[in-house]
Amino acid sequence: MRPNPLRTLWSEGRSVINGWLTIASGFAAETMAHQGWDSLTIDLQHGIVDYAAAVEMMTAISTTATVPLVRVPWLEPGIIMKTLDAGAYGVICPMISTRAEAEHFVACTRYAPRGTRSFGPQRALLYGGPDYPQHADATIVRFAMIETAQALDNLDGILSVEGLDAIYVGPSDLSLALGCRPVLDDVEPPVATAIQHILARAQEHNVVAGIHNGTAETARRRLEMGFRFVSVSSDARLMAAGAQQALAQVRR
Amino acid sequence: MRPNPLRTLWSEGRSVINGWLTIASGFAAETMAHQGWDSLTIDLQHGIVDYAAAVEMMTAISTTATVPLVRVPWLEPGIIMKTLDAGAYGVICPMISTRAEAEHFVACTRYAPRGTRSFGPQRALLYGGPDYPQHADATIVRFAMIETAQALDNLDGILSVEGLDAIYVGPSDLSLALGCRPVLDDVEPPVATAIQHILARAQEHNVVAGIHNGTAETARRRLEMGFRFVSVSSDARLMAAGAQQALAQVRR
Amino acid sequence: MRPNPLRTLWSEGRSVINGWLTIASGFAAETMAHQGWDSLTIDLQHGIVDYAAAVEMMTAISTTATVPLVRVPWLEPGIIMKTLDAGAYGVICPMISTRAEAEHFVACTRYAPRGTRSFGPQRALLYGGPDYPQHADATIVRFAMIETAQALDNLDGILSVEGLDAIYVGPSDLSLALGCRPVLDDVEPPVATAIQHILARAQEHNVVAGIHNGTAETARRRLEMGFRFVSVSSDARLMAAGAQQALAQVRR
Amino acid sequence: MRPNPLRTLWSEGRSVINGWLTIASGFAAETMAHQGWDSLTIDLQHGIVDYAAAVEMMTAISTTATVPLVRVPWLEPGIIMKTLDAGAYGVICPMISTRAEAEHFVACTRYAPRGTRSFGPQRALLYGGPDYPQHADATIVRFAMIETAQALDNLDGILSVEGLDAIYVGPSDLSLALGCRPVLDDVEPPVATAIQHILARAQEHNVVAGIHNGTAETARRRLEMGFRFVSVSSDARLMAAGAQQALAQVRR
Amino acid sequence: MRPNPLRTLWSEGRSVINGWLTIASGFAAETMAHQGWDSLTIDLQHGIVDYAAAVEMMTAISTTATVPLVRVPWLEPGIIMKTLDAGAYGVICPMISTRAEAEHFVACTRYAPRGTRSFGPQRALLYGGPDYPQHADATIVRFAMIETAQALDNLDGILSVEGLDAIYVGPSDLSLALGCRPVLDDVEPPVATAIQHILARAQEHNVVAGIHNGTAETARRRLEMGFRFVSVSSDARLMAAGAQQALAQVRR
Amino acid sequence: MRPNPLRTLWSEGRSVINGWLTIASGFAAETMAHQGWDSLTIDLQHGIVDYAAAVEMMTAISTTATVPLVRVPWLEPGIIMKTLDAGAYGVICPMISTRAEAEHFVACTRYAPRGTRSFGPQRALLYGGPDYPQHADATIVRFAMIETAQALDNLDGILSVEGLDAIYVGPSDLSLALGCRPVLDDVEPPVATAIQHILARAQEHNVVAGIHNGTAETARRRLEMGFRFVSVSSDARLMAAGAQQALAQVRR
Repeated sequence: MRPNPLRTLWSEGRSVINGWLTIASGFAAETMAHQGWDSLTIDLQHGIVDYAAAVEMMTAISTTATVPLVRVPWLEPGIIMKTLDAGAYGVICPMISTRAEAEHFVACTRYAPRGTRSFGPQRALLYGGPDYPQHADATIVRFAMIETAQALDNLDGILSVEGLDAIYVGPSDLSLALGCRPVLDDVEPPVATAIQHILARAQEHNVVAGIHNGTAETARRRLEMGFRFVSVSSDARLMAAGAQQALAQVRR
Repeated sequence: MRPNPLRTLWSEGRSVINGWLTIASGFAAETMAHQGWDSLTIDLQHGIVDYAAAVEMMTAISTTATVPLVRVPWLEPGIIMKTLDAGAYGVICPMISTRAEAEHFVACTRYAPRGTRSFGPQRALLYGGPDYPQHADATIVRFAMIETAQALDNLDGILSVEGLDAIYVGPSDLSLALGCRPVLDDVEPPVATAIQHILARAQEHNVVAGIHNGTAETARRRLEMGFRFVSVSSDARLMAAGAQQALAQVRR
Repeated sequence: MRPNPLRTLWSEGRSVINGWLTIASGFAAETMAHQGWDSLTIDLQHGIVDYAAAVEMMTAISTTATVPLVRVPWLEPGIIMKTLDAGAYGVICPMISTRAEAEHFVACTRYAPRGTRSFGPQRALLYGGPDYPQHADATIVRFAMIETAQALDNLDGILSVEGLDAIYVGPSDLSLALGCRPVLDDVEPPVATAIQHILARAQEHNVVAGIHNGTAETARRRLEMGFRFVSVSSDARLMAAGAQQALAQVRR
Repeated sequence: MRPNPLRTLWSEGRSVINGWLTIASGFAAETMAHQGWDSLTIDLQHGIVDYAAAVEMMTAISTTATVPLVRVPWLEPGIIMKTLDAGAYGVICPMISTRAEAEHFVACTRYAPRGTRSFGPQRALLYGGPDYPQHADATIVRFAMIETAQALDNLDGILSVEGLDAIYVGPSDLSLALGCRPVLDDVEPPVATAIQHILARAQEHNVVAGIHNGTAETARRRLEMGFRFVSVSSDARLMAAGAQQALAQVRR
Repeated sequence: MRPNPLRTLWSEGRSVINGWLTIASGFAAETMAHQGWDSLTIDLQHGIVDYAAAVEMMTAISTTATVPLVRVPWLEPGIIMKTLDAGAYGVICPMISTRAEAEHFVACTRYAPRGTRSFGPQRALLYGGPDYPQHADATIVRFAMIETAQALDNLDGILSVEGLDAIYVGPSDLSLALGCRPVLDDVEPPVATAIQHILARAQEHNVVAGIHNGTAETARRRLEMGFRFVSVSSDARLMAAGAQQALAQVRR
Repeated sequence: MRPNPLRTLWSEGRSVINGWLTIASGFAAETMAHQGWDSLTIDLQHGIVDYAAAVEMMTAISTTATVPLVRVPWLEPGIIMKTLDAGAYGVICPMISTRAEAEHFVACTRYAPRGTRSFGPQRALLYGGPDYPQHADATIVRFAMIETAQALDNLDGILSVEGLDAIYVGPSDLSLALGCRPVLDDVEPPVATAIQHILARAQEHNVVAGIHNGTAETARRRLEMGFRFVSVSSDARLMAAGAQQALAQVRR
C-alpha cells in the first residue's frame, strides 16, 4: 500500500504543513497540490464542498505526492466511510467532546473486528494499491477536533483513545466555547491558555497536536510551540487576499 | 449584517408568503426569486435537491431581495450547519416530535456557548456581511415542523423551547399521523382540528405559525386564520399545472 | 427502431403540441414529460441548457412516450451530431437563411453517403433500438428555423431541400428582421403577413410548418391557420406565470 | 401504482439477479439497465455515487423495466427517505446489527402510523404513479444487511421484524467480523458456515435471503443453495475485467 | 435596463480594473466579486470553465455590483450568443485577425436588423431587466483581441468596425506571433513596440484599449500608458502565489 | 516537459494499445487507467462526454502513467484548444476529408508562428510541467480520421501535411462512405481494401496508422497488418459485454 507521508514525517520528528480547500473544484485542488503543501485537507464541514466534489478534488490531488485529507461535516458514519472509500488518507472529525465520541469516530475508520468501518474500498484501492485492505487501518490518520468546553473537560479521556493519531485545535470554536471572539490567530488569553494546555496534554499522551491558522506567521509560531500539523489559511482566502493586494497596488 | 426581512415583517405584524423549490437549478430558483415571494425555501428533504444544488440556488436567490430558506432532510447536524454556512437565513427542520429534538435543532443553529453550531461561515459571510458572526444567532430563523402524533402530545414542550422562532405544519404527514389521507388543502376534520389547535398553542407561546399549502386559496385562508408564514405549491407543481392548463386550452 | 410519433401524427393529418424546456434539470424535464405533450424540445440555444444537461433531460423524457427534440445553438456540426447520438428524435436548427445552410443542416443529420453525420450512436442505440443505424435517417425529423430577412428571400430554395421535414417560425427574430418589436404572439402586421406567407409556401412544398408561441391561445389559433407543430410557452415561463398568479391570489 | 417485479418474482418462487452500480453516470446506468438484470442497485455506500448521481441513475434505469434499488450509506433517515422520494423501489441498509436497528430501518421506509417516513414523494409519484401514496409501503422492498458479529447474535430478532422483506449478506464484512480475510466468493470456512446459518434462519422466518457475489459462478452457486436475490460483480469491475482480458488478448 | 458600469466609467474618462476567472466555481467567483474588481471576466477560452459553469459564475457575480464579462473560446456564434443570453454584459473574442472577423463578431452580439444575434434572452432578462431587448445592443460591450500578426496588418480595419467598443491585447499570443517568448509582463522589445502601436491606433479610433497583465505593477504601468481596461493575474494564480508565499514563510 | 510515451513507443518501433472512454466519470476513467492501456482516448464526439467531464477524466487518468488523448467532436477550433489547455497529450479529429482541413486541424494544435493555437495552457502546465510552452508543439500528437469518400480521394494530400503525426481509420463511417454496412470488425471487402490502401499510403508517408476496433482479436490482426495504434472496444461496451456474459452464466 502507498505509505502515508504524514506518518513518515511524524516518525522522523518532522512537522506537516497542510493547505485547506473550500472551493469545489478539481482544477483549484490540483493547482494547490502543485504548490508544495505536505497535505491538503478538503473541508466538507465549512467548505462549500460536498462528497462528489471531494472525490474530484482527491483525484486531482492524487496526481501529485501531496496527501489528501478530509474534514467531515460531523461525526456521522456515512460520510466518514464514504470519504475513506474514495481515497482519503486521513480524516479530521469536528466537535469531538467526549471519550465515547472519540472512540466512535476511530471505530468508523477501522475495519472489524477492531472497528465498524464497512468494507468496500473503491477509489481507495486505486490510490492505495491492491493491498489496501490489509494496511488501511495502520496507514490512515485520524484527527479529533478539540474545540468545545466539554472536550477540555474530557481531554485526557479523548487523548487516551487507542487509534487516535492526532488532535486538531479549532481556535474559533474554542474561542466561542470560552466566551471569547471567534478568531484564528490573535486569540484571547483564555484561549491561548487552553491551546497551550491541549498541546501539553497531547504531547504527554504522545498524540500529534495540530491546529488551524489564519496566517503563515501564526502557523510558524505554532510549529515553534510544538504543534506538528499546521494548516494555513485556505484556497479562497489566499485568493481573496491576493486580489485585495493586487487591487490596492493598481489603484494606489 | 444584512437584516432578515422575515423578522421585520413579523415584528410589523405582517405575514410571509413563501415559495417552494424542489428543482435543482440555479436558473429556476433565480426565476422564482424574481416573481415577488417574500422568501423561497429550498427543499432538501422531499425536493430533488442536494447540498451542492442548494448552494447554487441560494446564490441565485441572493441576486434578489427574496430571503433564502432551506428545509433540511432530517434533524442531522451536518447538513443543518452546512446550509447555514452557505447562507441560509432560516431552517425548517422536519419531524420534530419532542422538546429534546427541538432543543437539539435550535442548538445546531446557534454558536457556543448557547448552541453547538460550529464556526466557519463561508458564503454566509459574503451574503450576510463581515459582522455575520456577531449577529447570525439573532438573525437566522428556526422552524420546527409539527407533523407527528408525538409532536401533538409534546406541543407545549416544543413551543416553549427558547430560540425556536416558528413552527411549520406539514398537513400531509399530520394527516397520516392521525390516520387520514395525506392531503395538503382539504384536510379531514381531525386534521383541521389539530391544525387549529397547533395554531392556537403557537399564538399562546408567541411563536410564529407557518403551514404548507397546495393552493393560493388555501394559503389565503390560512393567513386569515392567523398563520403568518404560508407556502404555496412549488416550482414543479406550478409548472406542471401551467402545462396541463395550456395543453387543455390548445386541445380544447 | 422505435418509431417517431411525430411522423405518425403528421401522416395521419394530425398536429403536434410541443413543450419547451429551458431549465437544466432531469426532474423538471421528467415532470413536464408526464403532462401530456406530444414532444418536448430541449432548447440548447436560448435555454440555460448545455449538452450534459440535455442528455440528462432526454433520459428523463425517455421514461415516457413523449418525443425528445432539441434546438441546437447554431448550425454547428459538433453539437448537432452529439445530440443525435444522445437520442434526440428531432433537431430544430436556428437561423437558416439560405438553401446552402439548409442543405448543410440536413446533411449533418444523415449518414453517408447521403449526409455527413458521423457514425457512433450511443444513447441513441439504447433509446431507438439496435436497428437504429438502418432507420435513423428516416426516423429523425429536421426543422429549419425561418426567422431572418434573408430566409424570406430564399424561402422556396430552403423549402425544396430534400430531407427537410419541417420549418419552424421564430416570431421574435422574424419581427426584429422586419423592423418590428420582438414578440411571440401579438406580432405586428408585417410579421403576420410574413408568417402567413411562410405557412402557405411550406404547405405548397409539403413541408410541415411549425411555430413558437407564448400562449395556448395563440398556439390554438396557429393550428387553425394550418400549422402542424406548435410550441407553447416554456417550463420557466409556465412556472413564473403560475407563481405570479398564486401570489396575486394570496395577496389579493 | 407500478408493481414491484421483485415481489412478483419472489411470490412465484423465482429469484432475482441483481446488477451493481458504483459509477456515477446516467449513461452507464442506462447501459446496464439494457443488459437484462432484474434489478440494479445503486450503491451509495461504497460506490462513488451520491444522491444527485443516484437520481440521475434511477431516472436512466426507469427508461427500462429493470427495478431501481439503492444501498444507502448508513442507517441515516435523511438519505433513506430521499432515495425513496426519488423513486427507489427497494432499499438495502448496511450494518444492521440489532433488532432495534432493523425496526428503525423499516420504520424509515413506511408512512405513519406504521412508520416514520415523511410524506412527499416527488419523482416517486412520476415513476410509481399517482396512487403511490396508498401502495408504497406494500410495494417497496427492504433489505437489512447481515455482516457483523453482533447481527449473528441477534439474527432471529432481526429476522422477525415485521416489514423486513429480505436480508442481504455482505461476505467481505462478515469475513472481517469473523476474523477472516475480506473476500466475496471464496470465503473461509467460518464464513461459509455463517452464511449457511443465515440462509437457514431467513428461510425459517420466511424472509428472502440475498447475497453479494464477485462472480457469476458464485452467484449461481448461491441460487442453488437457496438464496433468492444475488448480485454479481459491479459496473466498474465488469469493465475492468473486460479491459484486462482485452489487453491480454491483444498483447498475447 | 441595468446600466453597464463599464460604459459609465469610460464615459467619465476612468479606467476599469478587471479580475480574471479560470476556476469553475460559483463560490470562487462570488468570493472574487466581493474583493472590489470593477468587472470579472469568466475565461471560457483558456480557463477550465464551460458554459454551465459560466452561468453559475455569472449568477454568483450578479449578487454584487461587479460587472460579469466573458471571454469566449473562439469566434463561434453558438457560445457567444449563449453567454449573452445568460447575462454577460461584455464579450472578449480571441484571435480577431481581420476586419471581416471583427464585423462577424460584432454582428453576433447585436439583434437584427443590425446584427445576427438570435432573440431569446433568458437569464439576461432577469439580470438586465424587462427592457433588456430594447437596450442590450447599446449596453453590452465588445472586445476584439489583438494578438496575431495578421491583426497588426489589419489593425485600422478592425478598429474602424462600427460597434466594436474595445480591443484587448493578449501579450503572450502577440509575443509568439512576433517570434518572441510568450510572457505577459516583461515583453520583448518588438512586442512592446507593437503594444504601443496598438494603443496609439485604438486611441486614434476612439476605441478603448485593454490588456492582459500578470501583475498589478504591470497593470498600473499599462494604465499610465493610456490603457483603460486592465486585467490582473487570475483567481488560480493569485491563489497559487499566495500559497507559495505562505509556504515560504512557514518553512523559512 | 513530461514526455509523450506515444512518441517514445513509436520511435522504438512499438505500437500503442489504446482504450476508449465514453462514460462521463472520473472514477470510471481512473479505473480504466489502472488496467494497463498505453493511452486512453476520451471520446467527446460520440461518447456521452463533454468538456467538463473530459477535464475530470483527464485528471483521473493523470494519476497514472497512461497517456490522456481526446477525440474532439468536429474540426472546431474552440474545443480542440480547450482540450489541449486541459492537458490532452494528443487529439484525434474526425472527418478530415481534404488537405486544407488537415492543415487547419494541425494549425489549431500549434502555437504561432507555425500555427494558430492560442496561448494559455492551464491544466496543461500542471500536467506537462513549467516548460510546456516550449515543448508542447513537439510533444502533442495529432491524428486525422480517415473515414470519408473524399478523404480517400485526397489521401496523399492529407498524409503529406507537415505536423500530422498519425491517421486514424473509422471503419464504420468508412463503410457507410463506401456504401457498406457500418461495422467495426468484419468490414465488407471494399472497406477492407480501402483500409489496406490507407495503411500502405500512411506507411509510405511515414505517418503512423491507427484504427478503431470492436474486439481484441481484430485489434491484434490490425497490429499484425502494420497498424501502430489500435483502440479496442470502449468502457461502456466492455461493461455491457461483461454484464451479458455474467447474466448468461448465472441463468444458464
